[in-house]
Amino acid sequence: MRVGVIGGGQLARMMVPPAIALGIDIRVLAEVDGSSAAIAATAVGDYTDAATVLAFARDVDVITFDHEHVPQDVLAALVAEGVVVRPAPDALAVAQDKLVMRRRLTAIDAPVPDWAEVADAAQLGAFLADHGGRAVVKTPRGGYDGKGVRVVDTADGADDWFAAGGTLLAEELVDFRRELSQLVARRPSGEVRAWPLVQTVQRDGVCAEVFAPAPEAGDLPEKARYLATRIAERLDVTGVLAVELFETAEGGLAVNELAMRPHNTGHWSIDGAVTSQFEQHLRAVLDLPLGDPAPTAPWSVMINVLGGPEGQTMPERYPGVMADRPEVKLHSYAKTSRPGRKVGHVTATGDEFDDALARARAAAAFFQG
Amino acid sequence: MRVGVIGGGQLARMMVPPAIALGIDIRVLAEVDGSSAAIAATAVGDYTDAATVLAFARDVDVITFDHEHVPQDVLAALVAEGVVVRPAPDALAVAQDKLVMRRRLTAIDAPVPDWAEVADAAQLGAFLADHGGRAVVKTPRGGYDGKGVRVVDTADGADDWFAAGGTLLAEELVDFRRELSQLVARRPSGEVRAWPLVQTVQRDGVCAEVFAPAPEAGDLPEKARYLATRIAERLDVTGVLAVELFETAEGGLAVNELAMRPHNTGHWSIDGAVTSQFEQHLRAVLDLPLGDPAPTAPWSVMINVLGGPEGQTMPERYPGVMADRPEVKLHSYAKTSRPGRKVGHVTATGDEFDDALARARAAAAFFQG
Repeated sequence: MRVGVIGGGQLARMMVPPAIALGIDIRVLAEVDGSSAAIAATAVGDYTDAATVLAFARDVDVITFDHEHVPQDVLAALVAEGVVVRPAPDALAVAQDKLVMRRRLTAIDAPVPDWAEVADAAQLGAFLADHGGRAVVKTPRGGYDGKGVRVVDTADGADDWFAAGGTLLAEELVDFRRELSQLVARRPSGEVRAWPLVQTVQRDGVCAEVFAPAPEAGDLPEKARYLATRIAERLDVTGVLAVELFETAEGGLAVNELAMRPHNTGHWSIDGAVTSQFEQHLRAVLDLPLGDPAPTAPWSVMINVLGGPEGQTMPERYPGVMADRPEVKLHSYAKTSRPGRKVGHVTATGDEFDDALARARAAAAFFQG
Repeated sequence: MRVGVIGGGQLARMMVPPAIALGIDIRVLAEVDGSSAAIAATAVGDYTDAATVLAFARDVDVITFDHEHVPQDVLAALVAEGVVVRPAPDALAVAQDKLVMRRRLTAIDAPVPDWAEVADAAQLGAFLADHGGRAVVKTPRGGYDGKGVRVVDTADGADDWFAAGGTLLAEELVDFRRELSQLVARRPSGEVRAWPLVQTVQRDGVCAEVFAPAPEAGDLPEKARYLATRIAERLDVTGVLAVELFETAEGGLAVNELAMRPHNTGHWSIDGAVTSQFEQHLRAVLDLPLGDPAPTAPWSVMINVLGGPEGQTMPERYPGVMADRPEVKLHSYAKTSRPGRKVGHVTATGDEFDDALARARAAAAFFQG
């Protein structure tokens, strides 16, 4: 069994350990030498170049992704050559363009914030007028970790993006209690498995902390599992689907974003679930029976390591953190630090939420400042 | 941080996932192309050739091992060049030669079966006469998985081995209740951490099943931990030390074998302990603080996959086993099957021993016959 992953970031990197465990031959098309997933990189090249991607894909059983940025014409070329691509291009298109996503989610009656496609300042102004004078504006493509997202309160607040061309997505500013995330995996044969609903704490638009399961969530886990399963089925997603959610002021759910790959809000599952999102993604795209996503501990807390001392790597801080917290699991993406860059994460598990949170934060603190 | 592993077997293979998690650059000197640890192999060559090993070792922070077969003159050449070797050659010598091991264990008052160095049939006959007419005879070097071990009841029972040259180890046939294994890890700074004492079930001299912790063991866990810690300290072992033990008919312990590397009886720790033996070995040889070896579930049962259909690989059986047992963790060493060959293992964890055992056996059965 051979899986080809396009993209050499930390998500591809974290697919490698379960591939090794299962005896799956994993190969990565990386953007650059020395990528995070370099250990499995069998090719380095441009994922927007069809010839490069086709050459990489020739010998694998299935192609999957570290990111959603492979152009549709490249995906079409793969399919035309008989390459199995999972998730399939039609599904991936929904994750590639936020306007397509809003249209498709609306079409299947998934709960979403009020939204509109706006082509100029006048249309944005009209949306603002209908929504209390404030809105979230997003570029349909290329945004991540808070990039391509802006809160505006004047009609000219997105003029630079309009000037760059194309239409934008305007969304109501949701009055939310907190952010949640529901991950499921689906295989082509139809089987779907869901991890517990988790809470995510964002800082400056970037995932900072994840609590698994989401504390005090009432009936939201059941609703979220049903919603994410329906989205996976209706959009024909294969592999891992992450549904980022708002818990609204009224106690309901609204879909914020979708991702069709392992997701930052699922990293806790490496150390806190019977089957991690990375193993499950491999099983799903190979159309193998899915693993048990049950948690292995009552609570898991995952904290991203963002930045840290410029130019340092996480292992330089290991002596301190390992001596202090021998039970916290440390994950380095083999990246040198820059302010705000995701260079790794830590996960603590335990019987008590407050205790796991305190231990994870204590470990993460070693890598800051 | 860069670790070089000599030997490309499944133990090197299983060091790779925790190296990826921790951001440790792991490099393997494999015997052949397409080894079990091929994903991390940066060199292929003969580990008995000093020049080959020196070239491999040039850029790493520490050299460690997948097996104990690197000759002492090669190890001495590494040390002479300033390469850090862990475990150090003097410690490794004890694991390389069963006569040296018996002498050293006797010198530190570790409990061992009665033993003698025998150079010919007459000496073997004398040992038999003193031990009820039966004895275990072992070749000092090169034995593993039941090879190089024989029960004899006549003085000429090892004549073929005597004819091959050298002296042999004769040991009393221990009347044991069961076999146990105590794994510890020790770092050069002195810290030692112990996993729970486990029970091992051998078939035809090969480890078949491991139960963690050893059921109904009374005060043996404390005694075993103390014993293994003392051996690690007195022999100056760094990295993982496996102490294979007999539980004697009188309820005591006797040391059967030592291994100075991750060991088959510790594979359960990948899925059943906070820190696996493979992560701990990397921490230990890098002189990093050791991780918590506590179990993550009340019971773990590991079963080796031995052989299976000739020429098949484990993944060919995945659809059945994964559908039947979604919670059992599957490990393939990417080897084609031969009768009796260790090609992988499965681990089940749970709250009840009988349940974990039944589920592990059900999963393992998919890979047999």
